Amino acid sequence: MKVIKVGLLGMGTVGSGVFEVLKNNAAEISRRAGCTIQIGRVVVRDPEEVRTLVGPDIPLSSDPFDIVNDPAIDVLVEVMGGTTLARDVVLAAIAKGKQVVTANKALLAVHGNEIFARAREAGVMVAFEAAVAGGIPIVKALREGLSANRVQMVAGIINGTTNFILSEMRDKGISFDVALAEAQRLGYAEADPTFDIEGIDAAHKATLLASIAFGVPVQFDGAYIEGISKLAAEDFTYADQLGYRIKLLGIARRRAEGIELRVHPTLIPARRLLANVEGAMNAVWVKGDAVGETLYYGPGAGKLPTASAVVADLVDVARQIEVAPESRVPYLAFQQDQLQQVPVLPAAEMETAYYLRIPVRDEPGVLADITRIMADEGVSIDAMLQRQPSEGANTTDIILMTHRTVEKCIDIASRHIEALPSVTAAPVRLRVEALD
Amino acid sequence: MKVIKVGLLGMGTVGSGVFEVLKNNAAEISRRAGCTIQIGRVVVRDPEEVRTLVGPDIPLSSDPFDIVNDPAIDVLVEVMGGTTLARDVVLAAIAKGKQVVTANKALLAVHGNEIFARAREAGVMVAFEAAVAGGIPIVKALREGLSANRVQMVAGIINGTTNFILSEMRDKGISFDVALAEAQRLGYAEADPTFDIEGIDAAHKATLLASIAFGVPVQFDGAYIEGISKLAAEDFTYADQLGYRIKLLGIARRRAEGIELRVHPTLIPARRLLANVEGAMNAVWVKGDAVGETLYYGPGAGKLPTASAVVADLVDVARQIEVAPESRVPYLAFQQDQLQQVPVLPAAEMETAYYLRIPVRDEPGVLADITRIMADEGVSIDAMLQRQPSEGANTTDIILMTHRTVEKCIDIASRHIEALPSVTAAPVRLRVEALD
Repeated sequence: MKVIKVGLLGMGTVGSGVFEVLKNNAAEISRRAGCTIQIGRVVVRDPEEVRTLVGPDIPLSSDPFDIVNDPAIDVLVEVMGGTTLARDVVLAAIAKGKQVVTANKALLAVHGNEIFARAREAGVMVAFEAAVAGGIPIVKALREGLSANRVQMVAGIINGTTNFILSEMRDKGISFDVALAEAQRLGYAEADPTFDIEGIDAAHKATLLASIAFGVPVQFDGAYIEGISKLAAEDFTYADQLGYRIKLLGIARRRAEGIELRVHPTLIPARRLLANVEGAMNAVWVKGDAVGETLYYGPGAGKLPTASAVVADLVDVARQIEVAPESRVPYLAFQQDQLQQVPVLPAAEMETAYYLRIPVRDEPGVLADITRIMADEGVSIDAMLQRQPSEGANTTDIILMTHRTVEKCIDIASRHIEALPSVTAAPVRLRVEALD
Repeated sequence: MKVIKVGLLGMGTVGSGVFEVLKNNAAEISRRAGCTIQIGRVVVRDPEEVRTLVGPDIPLSSDPFDIVNDPAIDVLVEVMGGTTLARDVVLAAIAKGKQVVTANKALLAVHGNEIFARAREAGVMVAFEAAVAGGIPIVKALREGLSANRVQMVAGIINGTTNFILSEMRDKGISFDVALAEAQRLGYAEADPTFDIEGIDAAHKATLLASIAFGVPVQFDGAYIEGISKLAAEDFTYADQLGYRIKLLGIARRRAEGIELRVHPTLIPARRLLANVEGAMNAVWVKGDAVGETLYYGPGAGKLPTASAVVADLVDVARQIEVAPESRVPYLAFQQDQLQQVPVLPAAEMETAYYLRIPVRDEPGVLADITRIMADEGVSIDAMLQRQPSEGANTTDIILMTHRTVEKCIDIASRHIEALPSVTAAPVRLRVEALD
């Protein structure tokens, strides 16, 4: 039986998961793949830490280029993370004609165009199922399963940390800070949670999804990114009253003028499956012109779920290693010379519906002033909620939901509303997606 | 650019959808596939009916073997249905070295072992994404996306007709007969609905899912099949009160002794995503040892969704046509010589939890008698619900939910319960799956 030798770069959570899955399910994987996939070399910063786990038979060292320079290694599995050394090692491996499997979303979102171009010249694969939504085979679904479709929109809960925090805030009525502390205590959030809570990790993944869905180069720089740290407990209450849930979505949407690529807290109708994805789970909703809507749900992170995706890529690579490069599934789902240079639209041109929470003094005429401003900017109102002022207070909130409109109209309307004498602070703005 | 010529057998709903998708999305598909996929011949019973749609340039006739005998045709797309003529045509095409794409679940569930064996001898592909859950790329997810996993269980809502009927029964509190008539009026159910409502269609699909998930030959004959026609409105009420929904599931479960392959109405906890799949939509839940639980949701039927799956298969076939057969993804996910002869367990050995609705006279001691019988058979009770008799009546229902147990124990307990003097009719039995 053919043997494929893997060089494993990184033995943290994901790396040790890959090691474990390849070992535990070796027989099942061989029965499927028709070949044997073996770890042929392991590189970690501190080899002593993992020597017992790796065992005496597998070469173990600390220099990533040991994998690059080992002629016995067919495939580099990069699960080290980072975008500097990881880039150098991946490019060097490609230059040596090695196949690459990576779970590194940041690397591909930032350096993907360069990496895919070099890989194409070298005729090697770069597989990255594990880079988006962990164990969910969403990259395969978009690249292959939905290949008959002109994809119109992708919207995903693609960061488990923030979904956990949002679920806690809604279920327990707690503040963002308390929910974040809870997530950190349980290991769902890191000590420095910036990448997750400010939406950067989700934007890396949305960038890759957009490229695969639409056949465009990766354009992380164009993404609009807004995290969840400014959400208030009352927004969850109002959303519930309106029949919505708040989720951090990564959205890629195709429009005639270009693509929208955006990450932000989003109100979703509570009846939609995506609105009911709770805790650290991930889900990606895809709308295509032939298939209609489909949804893919599962664990977005974790040792074995992520390893599941890495090893599935290894099986694909093992099968395709002798196939002519032009017959393989292209890196970004579309043949590399067929990628279209479609721009990412600026935030002002984004088109969606809006939720506005407007803090006002409870005075006659304020609602009339607000609705007149909205009408003047061509924004049509879908629903309205006005809270009674609490006992003794004379301020309250007006909550408006609009129909779909262009962001710049909301920008202008918001400025005018904020300038009204009865309005006590800038309106809080959240976006709404019906997913229909 | 390489051209792949397709012989399209059948121009009903699915066939005309395939025609439409290949035409409308030709550019997008070529950008992905790196080749052109063309309809090279169409065969239908009555060519005159579709001549305008097909146009003057594509040969059109009524003899299926015209496709088999046309040396210009690379791939047979069989969307004609049936298991007799379809079998002959598919086997003849394979013998001529043509690739096959089919949406025909009945054909593969019944004749799959023969068809796959012949295809293997001839070195051709048989792709069937459209045969299970329409537009959802579940075959690809199981065969490739989850290839690192030892799959433990698959449970799917894989028949849209019955899911529509069950959604209507619950939402509107109507009887099965009324809901079926509504489904027929809306085109969700056929004039003779037997295949759908008695679970046979779902069992065909579950048979294929079991083979792909576990790497076993297709074993439709071993499937336990129970439809939805005997469900009563009160079962939906009781299920709701217990926090459950009733869905027709196709289930394939791996156990040490063999596999369970079964289709039956099933209570699912209302919080699970699968419990919230409504109307004619489909969804498949998969549990694997590495990935944990994943779920795939989308339209299970319809012209364009099914065509989406057929055309995705065509893209796969086009890419793989020059690849050595042993490097391709195997028909049933596992290499053909690695399929395991694992038996399907008989119904008496199935292991699940149960819902029992027991019609009783409202007399002292009846509950004690029932619980004693359950204890004697080793069945442990998880929850109980007793309805007050309606005004003037002296009969009522006792509803029991058990912990997981073996079906034969429930068989014996049910017989003993039915023999109790206070019990007025045979207990109604539904199965319960927690999906955890």
